[in-house]
Amino acid sequence: MEKTYKYEDRLKSTVLSLSDSNSFYDLCHMRWNGEPLPSQTSIKEIIGLCRSILFPGFFGSGDVNSFNLEYVLGMECERLYQLLENQIVAGLALKECCCKEINYNSLSEKASALAVEFIERLPEIRHVLQTDVCAVYRGDPAAESREEVIYCYPAIKAISNYRIAHALLELGVPVIPRMISEMAHSETGIDIHPGAVIGEYFSIDHGTGVVIGATAIIGNNVKLYQGVTLGAKSFTYDENNNPVKGIPRHPIIGDNVVIYSNTSVLGRIRIGNNAVIGGNIWVTEDVAENEKLVQAKANNILRFKQEDKA
Amino acid sequence: MEKTYKYEDRLKSTVLSLSDSNSFYDLCHMRWNGEPLPSQTSIKEIIGLCRSILFPGFFGSGDVNSFNLEYVLGMECERLYQLLENQIVAGLALKECCCKEINYNSLSEKASALAVEFIERLPEIRHVLQTDVCAVYRGDPAAESREEVIYCYPAIKAISNYRIAHALLELGVPVIPRMISEMAHSETGIDIHPGAVIGEYFSIDHGTGVVIGATAIIGNNVKLYQGVTLGAKSFTYDENNNPVKGIPRHPIIGDNVVIYSNTSVLGRIRIGNNAVIGGNIWVTEDVAENEKLVQAKANNILRFKQEDKA
Amino acid sequence: MEKTYKYEDRLKSTVLSLSDSNSFYDLCHMRWNGEPLPSQTSIKEIIGLCRSILFPGFFGSGDVNSFNLEYVLGMECERLYQLLENQIVAGLALKECCCKEINYNSLSEKASALAVEFIERLPEIRHVLQTDVCAVYRGDPAAESREEVIYCYPAIKAISNYRIAHALLELGVPVIPRMISEMAHSETGIDIHPGAVIGEYFSIDHGTGVVIGATAIIGNNVKLYQGVTLGAKSFTYDENNNPVKGIPRHPIIGDNVVIYSNTSVLGRIRIGNNAVIGGNIWVTEDVAENEKLVQAKANNILRFKQEDKA
Amino acid sequence: MEKTYKYEDRLKSTVLSLSDSNSFYDLCHMRWNGEPLPSQTSIKEIIGLCRSILFPGFFGSGDVNSFNLEYVLGMECERLYQLLENQIVAGLALKECCCKEINYNSLSEKASALAVEFIERLPEIRHVLQTDVCAVYRGDPAAESREEVIYCYPAIKAISNYRIAHALLELGVPVIPRMISEMAHSETGIDIHPGAVIGEYFSIDHGTGVVIGATAIIGNNVKLYQGVTLGAKSFTYDENNNPVKGIPRHPIIGDNVVIYSNTSVLGRIRIGNNAVIGGNIWVTEDVAENEKLVQAKANNILRFKQEDKA
Amino acid sequence: MEKTYKYEDRLKSTVLSLSDSNSFYDLCHMRWNGEPLPSQTSIKEIIGLCRSILFPGFFGSGDVNSFNLEYVLGMECERLYQLLENQIVAGLALKECCCKEINYNSLSEKASALAVEFIERLPEIRHVLQTDVCAVYRGDPAAESREEVIYCYPAIKAISNYRIAHALLELGVPVIPRMISEMAHSETGIDIHPGAVIGEYFSIDHGTGVVIGATAIIGNNVKLYQGVTLGAKSFTYDENNNPVKGIPRHPIIGDNVVIYSNTSVLGRIRIGNNAVIGGNIWVTEDVAENEKLVQAKANNILRFKQEDKA
Amino acid sequence: MEKTYKYEDRLKSTVLSLSDSNSFYDLCHMRWNGEPLPSQTSIKEIIGLCRSILFPGFFGSGDVNSFNLEYVLGMECERLYQLLENQIVAGLALKECCCKEINYNSLSEKASALAVEFIERLPEIRHVLQTDVCAVYRGDPAAESREEVIYCYPAIKAISNYRIAHALLELGVPVIPRMISEMAHSETGIDIHPGAVIGEYFSIDHGTGVVIGATAIIGNNVKLYQGVTLGAKSFTYDENNNPVKGIPRHPIIGDNVVIYSNTSVLGRIRIGNNAVIGGNIWVTEDVAENEKLVQAKANNILRFKQEDKA
Repeated sequence: MEKTYKYEDRLKSTVLSLSDSNSFYDLCHMRWNGEPLPSQTSIKEIIGLCRSILFPGFFGSGDVNSFNLEYVLGMECERLYQLLENQIVAGLALKECCCKEINYNSLSEKASALAVEFIERLPEIRHVLQTDVCAVYRGDPAAESREEVIYCYPAIKAISNYRIAHALLELGVPVIPRMISEMAHSETGIDIHPGAVIGEYFSIDHGTGVVIGATAIIGNNVKLYQGVTLGAKSFTYDENNNPVKGIPRHPIIGDNVVIYSNTSVLGRIRIGNNAVIGGNIWVTEDVAENEKLVQAKANNILRFKQEDKA
Repeated sequence: MEKTYKYEDRLKSTVLSLSDSNSFYDLCHMRWNGEPLPSQTSIKEIIGLCRSILFPGFFGSGDVNSFNLEYVLGMECERLYQLLENQIVAGLALKECCCKEINYNSLSEKASALAVEFIERLPEIRHVLQTDVCAVYRGDPAAESREEVIYCYPAIKAISNYRIAHALLELGVPVIPRMISEMAHSETGIDIHPGAVIGEYFSIDHGTGVVIGATAIIGNNVKLYQGVTLGAKSFTYDENNNPVKGIPRHPIIGDNVVIYSNTSVLGRIRIGNNAVIGGNIWVTEDVAENEKLVQAKANNILRFKQEDKA
Repeated sequence: MEKTYKYEDRLKSTVLSLSDSNSFYDLCHMRWNGEPLPSQTSIKEIIGLCRSILFPGFFGSGDVNSFNLEYVLGMECERLYQLLENQIVAGLALKECCCKEINYNSLSEKASALAVEFIERLPEIRHVLQTDVCAVYRGDPAAESREEVIYCYPAIKAISNYRIAHALLELGVPVIPRMISEMAHSETGIDIHPGAVIGEYFSIDHGTGVVIGATAIIGNNVKLYQGVTLGAKSFTYDENNNPVKGIPRHPIIGDNVVIYSNTSVLGRIRIGNNAVIGGNIWVTEDVAENEKLVQAKANNILRFKQEDKA
Repeated sequence: MEKTYKYEDRLKSTVLSLSDSNSFYDLCHMRWNGEPLPSQTSIKEIIGLCRSILFPGFFGSGDVNSFNLEYVLGMECERLYQLLENQIVAGLALKECCCKEINYNSLSEKASALAVEFIERLPEIRHVLQTDVCAVYRGDPAAESREEVIYCYPAIKAISNYRIAHALLELGVPVIPRMISEMAHSETGIDIHPGAVIGEYFSIDHGTGVVIGATAIIGNNVKLYQGVTLGAKSFTYDENNNPVKGIPRHPIIGDNVVIYSNTSVLGRIRIGNNAVIGGNIWVTEDVAENEKLVQAKANNILRFKQEDKA
Repeated sequence: MEKTYKYEDRLKSTVLSLSDSNSFYDLCHMRWNGEPLPSQTSIKEIIGLCRSILFPGFFGSGDVNSFNLEYVLGMECERLYQLLENQIVAGLALKECCCKEINYNSLSEKASALAVEFIERLPEIRHVLQTDVCAVYRGDPAAESREEVIYCYPAIKAISNYRIAHALLELGVPVIPRMISEMAHSETGIDIHPGAVIGEYFSIDHGTGVVIGATAIIGNNVKLYQGVTLGAKSFTYDENNNPVKGIPRHPIIGDNVVIYSNTSVLGRIRIGNNAVIGGNIWVTEDVAENEKLVQAKANNILRFKQEDKA
Repeated sequence: MEKTYKYEDRLKSTVLSLSDSNSFYDLCHMRWNGEPLPSQTSIKEIIGLCRSILFPGFFGSGDVNSFNLEYVLGMECERLYQLLENQIVAGLALKECCCKEINYNSLSEKASALAVEFIERLPEIRHVLQTDVCAVYRGDPAAESREEVIYCYPAIKAISNYRIAHALLELGVPVIPRMISEMAHSETGIDIHPGAVIGEYFSIDHGTGVVIGATAIIGNNVKLYQGVTLGAKSFTYDENNNPVKGIPRHPIIGDNVVIYSNTSVLGRIRIGNNAVIGGNIWVTEDVAENEKLVQAKANNILRFKQEDKA
């Protein structure tokens, strides 16, 4: 009966201890002056709107026809503009919030300019995605149609999030590009850093476990399989033992390269055009044009007969 | 103040450029004649209903008892029938929409027949899933109970989606099987193509990164660990440089086989009954019955002493 | 027109066959006496509340300021207490439901005591998570700020779920810890069993495919990359061919260890302090303090020139 | 900028003053011991379920056919049973909460018995409502069909809520009957106290402003127009100046009576069978069988020519 | 504990008795052949869309500006067209469902033609509503602005629902007009039958209890107060004792007439232009042009001194 | 098949005609410069929060106990403060939007000051509502308890909305008070203008159709029955034929007055203390202290015997 009372004191004292600002130093986003935080929900809606604008009729409300196409795209672009403006303000404020006074009028000015610039890039992003859809479709005999590729394939989700995030990063929008790429990561298991530079006709098969680092550069017509890492080999640390940011540390991949499943390619090495890299290997040195690397089975695998299981 | 006006012209012209049909060729699902598209939301509900029917009381509304069991199953089967009929119509229409005129009456006729046939297979699907639950439970000392396996284990989610999708594919339902398997892929990181043929007592441990290709054949009592790929080694391309569909290109796995983490088994090879394949290796040749393969550590790993980190 | 009638008999007979208790033995959670089942929705809300309490202002309602901080934490702790109590009752009932009569009054008594004990551990959990945030931030040159790490990084999601689940497991709460770790697994591809024991300053980079087994022990300041498995090498089976539970079978990792991508460390081996283990290898024997292991490229990879692709 | 801080002190001190228990004496439902309160949302769902059960296919999910009728009614009756049980417990607890200890086990016992008794009355309630639908349809030349009457007419909403509430009141359920009648009052402007006793073939036209008091008795085949009051003329007060409860103080209306718009019939008077009472009058004395009362226009209305408006 | 079992038999037998088709004859809308029923939810959305189109920026999404106005109206008209088409099909089917076979193709053909005709009337409906807003604003000294009138006044809600419903009725749409007027009735207490014919500059003050019958005819610039009835005096019954439909039985009100609160004007009488009718009276005979009627206070009210209350 | 195309031209041209700014002059709230409009949804939430704060545990989340009371009230007051600030900004902007430039910074400054002042009045409003609850309870023998009165009686809903709206009006908040009173009007049929001045211990029975005008003044301990109007007799018009605002035109009611159902009291007359006014009459002249008025039945009603109905 006296359920509520029973632990009242213990609960109250825990609340007090959790409210002690010493206990949450660095873990709390206190809005002392109303500083907004980018909203996961809004970013999800932004991704949804972009997908809907880029692939009309496949995502979003879906009912696109000759009567309403311009109305639909108009409404979506306006909504996208408003959401982006708010989220960019939040992103900029988060970046500056260590500093004293935030001038929201000027942030808002800057954010709306960035939002419109991003929207102006959508036709171009759509154009490149068209090449990616083509590459994914050609790369998978199991794909029944381009529609299936656009509508079902995780690669297209991850690559379109990447291309959106990359464009925002190029415009100088903070935090949000990373949120967009992490959403694709969670949805598909493919983790492409928005800072990577990736050419046309890019494809990923299956994709779970793929990692592409922030300074990776990838040519045209490259195909990756699940579990491929394009990573860093080591970092440089500064005097405070923090990693130095911005140093090129991920590979440069040429055109027409294929990398098979679960292989790691690490460090600022170059993989030449037309190279083929087999699966389950660890590559930390340059690979020449047209070269092919595979796991040396003879040395690598022991075969023996088991005793009878029964 | 004049926020709305500020970029009106730039937004309007972007909308026009995005509305230009040349810009979205192949990326747009225009409903010129009202052609439906399978709905992700409905497919999710279909999966939820199947899980709820197959494992009564574990999923769905949950409150199952001796008074209501038949009512609950009756309502769920009817809802499933209606949703499936609509989605199958959409799937069939998507497949045919390149062709001129769609006859919706005949699609609907066909779809309702397929829907009821699928529902009639549910008792059998439930029976096989019972063996899978048993295998997963026996295969994991960390599993506390069968309830925990059914309710929490990603393997059961992925395998039940696979068995549902496979049955639909066998009936000739297009697109939807693939959507169902991709949903499990996103949820669990396990990517089983609905075309694969998989025996009873199938289990997967942890599962993230598992890939099972469209023409793979798996015997009874097989166990896979995370990161295992049963993939293709290469494709055949036709004269248009499109991959030829339907060629058997994935492995055939015998009964009682275990394959450990991050290993790739590629091409139309045969893994004999009772074989054991160790982790992190790359297998492209047949493995005999009862054979065991492991990574050759002596050759494969270099060990050396680091300089002192401090 | 007669759509509803058409398959009425076939649907009815399938419903009857699915209602047959023989067909769902072991797959049904029948509430003969109202036994509850832990709710996925409530567990999600519990995780959300914990994140919101541990990182005020980053998750949950978000608007935290000097006026409302104590009110917000008070409301969240009360809600958490109520949800936890209900879910722990359900978990305890599930564990006991094979046995005859469940005494809900005593379960409820026990559950509320466990719920309040868990809440009292939150300040300590927050303290350890602070070290994890610090380690993840220092370990990634691409991280712009601690805020970005807390807000976007899958590692923090997975590690905080683990720390919550581990505390509940230590208190003896059944099933729910596993549900919490599976939710992180689904969201991030990182699968940490709640039974593992993990020290401070723990970090995971990218993370997809990481598996940490139930009896693993991990020291302070350890860093894992994507695809790393800390797994079991083999199980002991009892006379019924069920795996024996609770036997230590996963590795013990020392302080300051780094393990690179896609490597599997298996069995109750010891990895000494300051060891570095390279990627894509298979480790089943002890590694000494300060030792470094890497894939032996010379033996492991075959390089050859491809014929011209064209 | 410092929006949050600005009024922090004034807000905090108002919160404290509003938290002072002296300030909310009699206006607060404190759950010192977890006492529930009947839920407006649940009562709305209860009304919806009753309407759906009583008029299958018109309300609720709507899709009723020969395959699912029994499943639908079974599910609805079970849901109704559960909701009613909970709400009756809450109602009984509210009534007793002045008294010391509430024994929830015995309340729950009592509540489930009342819930099932109420459900057993539904066939009978449906039978009487059939006569009401008939009467409303016959009484309105504007009604196109019985379907329109059931589906659109506020009279049917108000009368069915009354018949449900009356049955619950007869069973001794506290508070909830009144909540049900107030919901119809808000929806239709028709205020029928659940204590009133009303015969078959009852109809109300338009209905806004109709009031039927707690001790009114109404025969068969009675018709009321909008704005009719069957009220009390005066109350008896007890020594504490509180009105004495339960004294018959509202009229007794015979069979086949019609009362026109905006007329008030007040006090424990008798209106004989077949009487007709015209609109806009004030009746406080008995009316004989077959008698007719109308406003005496000659005396009552002054007619004169206006000056020209322009 | 055995809560679920306890009343299982009694619940089951009630379900059976409620499923007996004899018990719901005339009260059930069985979809033997899938016949739809107009949806209250869709009709509410239709009303919302009409209000939003007629008064842009006041209702609906609200954000209307020079950039998006045409997009917004385009989207709203398309949605309205689709909803209306579906609902008109349902209305037509309901009307015909007594008859044997419904041809849905032809109903759909007819419904889409009616839907587009209705939408073409919206500009005209908007024009007349402009005069109503003007009249309501001029008629109430308490109105601060036209915006307040549009946004808050129940009269505008009721009159716009009426004008929408009347247009649909004129086009021959069954059932739906009545549903629309009942929704306004429930929301505002104003009950205007869609069949009534009402001129421009119509206003209602407060409005609760106003009733305007199906064959009433109202001139321009008429004002009604709360509780006014324009009703029928008596009906003609046919040989089956059903009221004869369609006979003119409600008053004809001239231009510039004012009728004060709670007055009933009954039967096919004529109220001449510029007449003023005072409150609380009962009018069943013609009133001449410019005539004024008021309650004869001298005869009508008794005044006397009360004994002292104390 | 060509459903979408069929009426494309007619729909497009209607959209254009509805987009023509001449057609919606005065009926459109164009946000040329982003001017907000008070939100019906937010105002509903504001009312809900006020009810919840004033009657803790009866409305809102409901779970109030000794542990959480201050947390709950704190959260509710903060939410109320934020909502009110936004809505008051919208209200002020709407009032000023005819004028050129709106300075949102100063509106926001003003709005937050008004919001906090309103919140500071809540304790006082709660105090007066306590007297109203008491009066309603004493005035109705059918009321079982004060809880029932607070929780179910429309009078309390309408009076509390009035007292909230009145306080906002006194502070100079535009539009929102009227929206609040119209919401009560729609919910209860009771229309109290926020400008009226009403004393303590105010009660309304049943209430549908009650109208209390903007300049009415009501003493303490007054009771009104359903359908009572305290209205204006006539208005003064200015030279533009618009009614002159703000002139006292509604009655002044003394202490301890009772007015029975459907009576209209009109014009700036005085009803003396302790007066009793019977139902269904029309009062346009002063009534003295202690005087009682009733309908003169002898003159007013004709009684005659009907011919036999059969």
